[in-house]
Amino acid sequence: MYSKEILASLKKKGIEVGDEVRITGPKGSFTGLLMPRPEGAPDTFVLKLGNGYNLGINARGAAIELVRKAEKAKPPKEENEPRGDISILGCGGTIASKVEYRTGAVYPAITPSELRAAFPALGKLAKIHSKQLFSLFSEDMGMGHWKLLAEEAAREIRQGAHGVVVMHGTDTMTYTSAALSFMLQGLPAPVVFVGAQRSSDRPSSENEMNMMNAVFSAEQDVGEVCVCMHATGSDDYCHLHRGTRVRKMHTSRRDAFHSINSPPIAVVDYRSNRFETLMAPRKRSKSGLKLETKMNDNVAMVYVHPGMKPKFVEKLDSYDGVVLIATGLGHIPTNPFSDKLATPILPAVRGLIESGIPVVLAPQTINGRLDLNVYTNGRLLLEAGAMGDGMDWTPECAFVKLCWVLGQAKKMEKVKELMETDIAGEIWRRSPVEAF
Amino acid sequence: MYSKEILASLKKKGIEVGDEVRITGPKGSFTGLLMPRPEGAPDTFVLKLGNGYNLGINARGAAIELVRKAEKAKPPKEENEPRGDISILGCGGTIASKVEYRTGAVYPAITPSELRAAFPALGKLAKIHSKQLFSLFSEDMGMGHWKLLAEEAAREIRQGAHGVVVMHGTDTMTYTSAALSFMLQGLPAPVVFVGAQRSSDRPSSENEMNMMNAVFSAEQDVGEVCVCMHATGSDDYCHLHRGTRVRKMHTSRRDAFHSINSPPIAVVDYRSNRFETLMAPRKRSKSGLKLETKMNDNVAMVYVHPGMKPKFVEKLDSYDGVVLIATGLGHIPTNPFSDKLATPILPAVRGLIESGIPVVLAPQTINGRLDLNVYTNGRLLLEAGAMGDGMDWTPECAFVKLCWVLGQAKKMEKVKELMETDIAGEIWRRSPVEAF
Repeated sequence: MYSKEILASLKKKGIEVGDEVRITGPKGSFTGLLMPRPEGAPDTFVLKLGNGYNLGINARGAAIELVRKAEKAKPPKEENEPRGDISILGCGGTIASKVEYRTGAVYPAITPSELRAAFPALGKLAKIHSKQLFSLFSEDMGMGHWKLLAEEAAREIRQGAHGVVVMHGTDTMTYTSAALSFMLQGLPAPVVFVGAQRSSDRPSSENEMNMMNAVFSAEQDVGEVCVCMHATGSDDYCHLHRGTRVRKMHTSRRDAFHSINSPPIAVVDYRSNRFETLMAPRKRSKSGLKLETKMNDNVAMVYVHPGMKPKFVEKLDSYDGVVLIATGLGHIPTNPFSDKLATPILPAVRGLIESGIPVVLAPQTINGRLDLNVYTNGRLLLEAGAMGDGMDWTPECAFVKLCWVLGQAKKMEKVKELMETDIAGEIWRRSPVEAF
Repeated sequence: MYSKEILASLKKKGIEVGDEVRITGPKGSFTGLLMPRPEGAPDTFVLKLGNGYNLGINARGAAIELVRKAEKAKPPKEENEPRGDISILGCGGTIASKVEYRTGAVYPAITPSELRAAFPALGKLAKIHSKQLFSLFSEDMGMGHWKLLAEEAAREIRQGAHGVVVMHGTDTMTYTSAALSFMLQGLPAPVVFVGAQRSSDRPSSENEMNMMNAVFSAEQDVGEVCVCMHATGSDDYCHLHRGTRVRKMHTSRRDAFHSINSPPIAVVDYRSNRFETLMAPRKRSKSGLKLETKMNDNVAMVYVHPGMKPKFVEKLDSYDGVVLIATGLGHIPTNPFSDKLATPILPAVRGLIESGIPVVLAPQTINGRLDLNVYTNGRLLLEAGAMGDGMDWTPECAFVKLCWVLGQAKKMEKVKELMETDIAGEIWRRSPVEAF
């Protein structure tokens, strides 16, 4: 945001962010679109030039004048849409995005009519209704959004939705899918996350295929939070993944999502009416939906690496929990043989645990199971009270679970018990496959 | 370490760590091996009982007496070994380990005669000589070790070694292989890292196959730092990986090592004399070996996640460089649409950069290329001066490279130029394969 002073002067001239303006400063005169300025920046006008580049100009000592008002983006009209069998909840992200070329901003196309326009085949597959909750890139989704989304999904299910589909950005989708897996227990209907790696106004049928298969999955006999995304680089079929097991494993490929230490739940292809399970998912539950949204957001996730400083770990004492993304089977520098060049962080980790902060291990290798009983370094961590021995969770799932568990329990013993108990398919004591 | 007071009392009784002792305290009398006590713990005797469990007993108010002195582990004899063609340097790790069942400690079996005893077939493959540098689990290897190892490898090559093999623990092997890739330039001979996922006294031929293939690889026309490890779950052949590209991708599988965004350099099988290249490696250089070991060890590596606190990033201002393991194409929470529930860390990142601390991005997805020009969040980072746009490096390689670059340059501009220039095969502007 610009400072109050500058905002006042802009207001006087009738200039708003998004308008075309001319700015004249010591280095000349520039015309372009006035861009928003995120917090923490100095008082600098940011101008999007015709060539697409942004230019920063010190607002002090520069004159600004209006060239042309921006056309206002219209707020989505509230449409009077009848309830359907499948409820679609929008959080933003690429699958729901159109690039607004004027300002470069992204607007989710998630009003019911826009959704029907974007995915014309949807109506043939199911009776749907939809609701936009947020318009965000997923990297800005936090625990507050997780809670609202879980509440909304629960509301839809309690009002009779046969299944819920969540449109979500891919960057942090698996954090959110893990969070909802813990928050929504005894699900009588599936909650299926879906996204896209390419924006919806690009010539690719990715979005539609993912969306159609997500809706198709939401009709199946599954009582879990899942993620439905491309299984291969072609537009042939999708994989349905367990929400606590799935991870984004590539920056850009369409088949970026993989189940870790687990097969996917199913191969999904709505066109051939194919829902072929690769493992036994939890069925739609009849025990009654339980909503447990309490989370502790004061948890740090830390990557262990050579040269890591003990003070880095010591400074984590203001957190209520810490996840260490450790090397190999769950190791950190411990220096059991008193090497002169080594710098152990074990004493700092022990200090955290002794002061009552749970420390949970997760694997830097992503794949495989932790085992603290093989090497001295692991045993020393186990003795210090670190949690996670024998677990086969991803770093992201371990982090989300710790936030959730700390919302349910405070005592170290109870936290350990909950952490090491399987709640949403995130722990298998024996690996079902040597999946890789 | 025990306190001075307790150490003095132990000394008086002739008791050392490793001895069998009897400790009598308020809860009874226990016999076992006296274990070392890492720093930071209170004055507690740790006793390894016959059943393998460790027991802690408060040293104040407990009487300790000697039962039997430990047999001393003999220091390796200096053997008068003639120089060979292949130089083997030992850093410890599983490949060189034997479990000393008495104390549970691990000793590397790397004296020349022990090496020949462990790998009897080696002598048929090459004339070797060997040297033990460290006896460590690799998670305790730090930048001091990297420097010594690079110097030793350079010395061996300058003294005429046709190739160098480095025995190293697997946990942080790829950090060390990346470090040596930057430190050793213009290599006239390969430096091949080798390790094992199973300890050498277990009934598995893994160690021998990796070792034999590493020595075989060290004889080839390759002028790079590489890693030679199992390619499959069977004992059929190895992959030779580029030192800057390889990553440990499983906690326990023998084929845990994979090249990221690249094929391996070669398929290697000494038994069939097979060295089949899958890409063109750098050949043995004739330009003269250059050793550049300067590194800045004051670099933090940080995992970006939902709920991350701005203060976490702000506190990194005592570091000389920061690697952010970001989501998707290189994103962090920026909140460009001023969502009420979002907490951007962009201002804190901008603050670091403005105070002169280089911030480098790396992908949380491990695979794929960063691209900061697709989404607003990425563009804001790019404007703030973050480095890494277009790079296809692993988080570990980006971290090691930043440490090395900060050893060579101080000015932000020069750091950026070096970071984004390919130095040791760590950057490809175009991906050679859609490797996954």
